[in-house]
Amino acid sequence: MEPDSRFLRACRGLPTDATPIWLMRQAGRYMPEYRALRERYDMLTAIHTPELAAEITLQPVQAFDVDAAIIFSDILPPLSGMGLNLEFVRGAGPRLENPVRSVSDIDALTVPSMAEVMAGTLEAIRLVKESSRVPLIGFAGAPFTLASYAIEGGGSKNYTHAKRLMYSEPEAWDRLMTKLSEVVSDYLSAQAAAGADALQLFDSWAGAVGEQDYRCYIAPYTTRVLDRARSHGVPVINFSTGTSSHLDAVAACGGDVVGVDFRLPLDRAWDAVGRGRCLMGNLDPVKLMAPWDALRDAADDVLDRAAGRPGHIFNLGHGILPETPVENVRRLVDHVHARTR
Amino acid sequence: MEPDSRFLRACRGLPTDATPIWLMRQAGRYMPEYRALRERYDMLTAIHTPELAAEITLQPVQAFDVDAAIIFSDILPPLSGMGLNLEFVRGAGPRLENPVRSVSDIDALTVPSMAEVMAGTLEAIRLVKESSRVPLIGFAGAPFTLASYAIEGGGSKNYTHAKRLMYSEPEAWDRLMTKLSEVVSDYLSAQAAAGADALQLFDSWAGAVGEQDYRCYIAPYTTRVLDRARSHGVPVINFSTGTSSHLDAVAACGGDVVGVDFRLPLDRAWDAVGRGRCLMGNLDPVKLMAPWDALRDAADDVLDRAAGRPGHIFNLGHGILPETPVENVRRLVDHVHARTR
Repeated sequence: MEPDSRFLRACRGLPTDATPIWLMRQAGRYMPEYRALRERYDMLTAIHTPELAAEITLQPVQAFDVDAAIIFSDILPPLSGMGLNLEFVRGAGPRLENPVRSVSDIDALTVPSMAEVMAGTLEAIRLVKESSRVPLIGFAGAPFTLASYAIEGGGSKNYTHAKRLMYSEPEAWDRLMTKLSEVVSDYLSAQAAAGADALQLFDSWAGAVGEQDYRCYIAPYTTRVLDRARSHGVPVINFSTGTSSHLDAVAACGGDVVGVDFRLPLDRAWDAVGRGRCLMGNLDPVKLMAPWDALRDAADDVLDRAAGRPGHIFNLGHGILPETPVENVRRLVDHVHARTR
Repeated sequence: MEPDSRFLRACRGLPTDATPIWLMRQAGRYMPEYRALRERYDMLTAIHTPELAAEITLQPVQAFDVDAAIIFSDILPPLSGMGLNLEFVRGAGPRLENPVRSVSDIDALTVPSMAEVMAGTLEAIRLVKESSRVPLIGFAGAPFTLASYAIEGGGSKNYTHAKRLMYSEPEAWDRLMTKLSEVVSDYLSAQAAAGADALQLFDSWAGAVGEQDYRCYIAPYTTRVLDRARSHGVPVINFSTGTSSHLDAVAACGGDVVGVDFRLPLDRAWDAVGRGRCLMGNLDPVKLMAPWDALRDAADDVLDRAAGRPGHIFNLGHGILPETPVENVRRLVDHVHARTR
């Protein structure tokens, strides 16, 4: 770690020599180096083999001047330790073969040691820290997003099963969310102990519900996890999507940095989050597919709305897409640095 | 039409004897009458055969005390008249076999007469008006949602193709949106002429973009369509989802009534839309699968936030789901009337 790195200073709200930038899912399918490696290894092998995960984590650090790395993994592997059968189907994404649909399914879930279940990822964190000085972000899925995946069994349009459980069996919902909160907290703790310099919680599906349900069924667990994560002494990023109408409720859950999607202009998002907090965001990932002039204008708009205020970490409003041209990533990273230096 | 019907009075902001209620997609898969009919006829046959569409339209009117009917159709059939090959795959939803991906694809789209392309739906409107006194809503997809469907060819997670066109080829985007605005305006006009008592524009995918892109790439066309729709003298409903962070921009496009999804509590949504406008919404459709006590509490919360103000039309925040128990629909409709009478 660079103790005075741009990224970590920005996470503390301190002034930096230029605005730090990294991109969610920056290690991934848009990079030819990644695709070449994934032709030889399937997703779960790439995640659980420390040398492979470390190599993938550092690919974007070697290719671009990004200010942070994020450990290569996925939010779902911890669920497999709880008794859910996870598989990644090529071209179709992750699937859980035995989704949670009943109270007895919930009660059957175990709360295993993440030091064992995620041993490969924790070792990958140690390897990255040995070989690179770039700040490294560890991460986990937030309890709600993991619960929805566990219940739906995969991606979902309406989250019908998850929300039905939430509304119909609030006690069972609490038991599931409590177990997931323990697993997530344990996992983030283990990543900090392994050397992660910052921790990010991904509540990618939090926008499935409205504000009142967010406050009632999600926020208490997110708050618990973020509180415990902050006790490890590293900055914590609280990221969610689809929550731009109630960012105040999201921010109230905690975290040093609030990560926002692209639906609100950055200045309005910062007003909603509170000016005393750090903010990460929020370029629409599809803008990376636009011609450079349009991409640059969109990036400049984000930077103009940040107005040079300390505590801004430039990022996308959601993960980078596989169709993204590598050259646009390079130009964006360099432009954000050059324009804010 | 009942000239003094609750629904039409509420659309004008006038006091009513009870809060009117109807449910988006109220004629559909959760009803056994509908499923029985659909076992014999495929989706496009059901839409384009006037007698079938009229029968389906009236099924929920006969089963429940709803205050409006909405003509049974789908937002996509008008696209088939423009040269796109639409099919409904059982269990997988609509697909366009030849999506629009290039400027020449856009230029090849025709702007046909909706009186011909949608003749079955227009005749179904006449049949419903002959046989029922319930106010009847005609509808169309908004230009952005139709453009996204035309470009993506079906449902989408990231709207990558649509947004890439929008950001990379703004002139081609304008040509596509202009053609779609003409088709949609023509179709709404024909429905009003056939007897529709109100018109609803569905921008179901408007939440795919952030506020700035909404204002730049969507709002001008939505505004044009809503302005023309209002010229027919019937109330116009401007419905969208995923836009709760910038409802002011949505409301500024026009419409007598703004329809909102479930992400913001109704009172805050009304503040954002403006208290001078009428509001439709906004129960989460999954609440209909909860036990009655929880469903009733959620409905009461919506009603409490409406506070008996004229101009509220009770509805869901999105279409009713196929798994919905019929009995809960009946109880909800009766409860909304009883509690507000």
